[in-house]
Amino acid sequence: MTTQEVANRLVALCREGKYEQAVKELYSPEIVSVEAEGTPNRTVKGLDAITEKGIRFASKLEKVNSSFVSDPIVADNFFSCTMLMNVNMKDIPVAIDMNEVCVYTVNNGKIVREEFFYAQEPEA
Amino acid sequence: MTTQEVANRLVALCREGKYEQAVKELYSPEIVSVEAEGTPNRTVKGLDAITEKGIRFASKLEKVNSSFVSDPIVADNFFSCTMLMNVNMKDIPVAIDMNEVCVYTVNNGKIVREEFFYAQEPEA
Repeated sequence: MTTQEVANRLVALCREGKYEQAVKELYSPEIVSVEAEGTPNRTVKGLDAITEKGIRFASKLEKVNSSFVSDPIVADNFFSCTMLMNVNMKDIPVAIDMNEVCVYTVNNGKIVREEFFYAQEPEA
Repeated sequence: MTTQEVANRLVALCREGKYEQAVKELYSPEIVSVEAEGTPNRTVKGLDAITEKGIRFASKLEKVNSSFVSDPIVADNFFSCTMLMNVNMKDIPVAIDMNEVCVYTVNNGKIVREEFFYAQEPEA
């Protein structure tokens, strides 16, 4: 798959909320996942760590009120998209926006690195 | 200016090749500029350092054969765009592609951080 094809597929799966399938289909075993600057345990490596991060997030999530994933923009083996969600989390009494710019690196048709850019304190 | 307005203005100026004007108009004095992982002197800070980096690049540039800047995608105070250029550099005998994903952070209507994602070895 080209980077454009990987990007299109990731965006399509995320729009359907199929995050686990996206990881299984598109991620390299060597995946490196980087959260925003200042996040504790900012960088994790490997499919198990990514999957665990997803499960931890899902366990805290009460309800997704709305979500939007932009079309991807591609430059060589890098691509970027935005993900905008409004959610209710179990431990927060009000709905919050979780908006981020996501940057992905692709090698040999697999995502080998992802990095997320977002403000540290989501607005209530 | 909102992040969307800063993003639109940066893209408009870059499409016209007005990089110096973009820095003057849109960049914070506290700007942090981050090149790709593995680049020597990867991170520089301040308007003087950014301007000097631009001058150094311009001094090596022979000719821009084509350039494309994508529309920006925005999430809160972050935005991303791609910049694709085909150029001739003075010290390289063939035209090269310089393609990158660019991620910007905006605070109080000014760009305070930029980071570029590209492959270390441009293809000849």
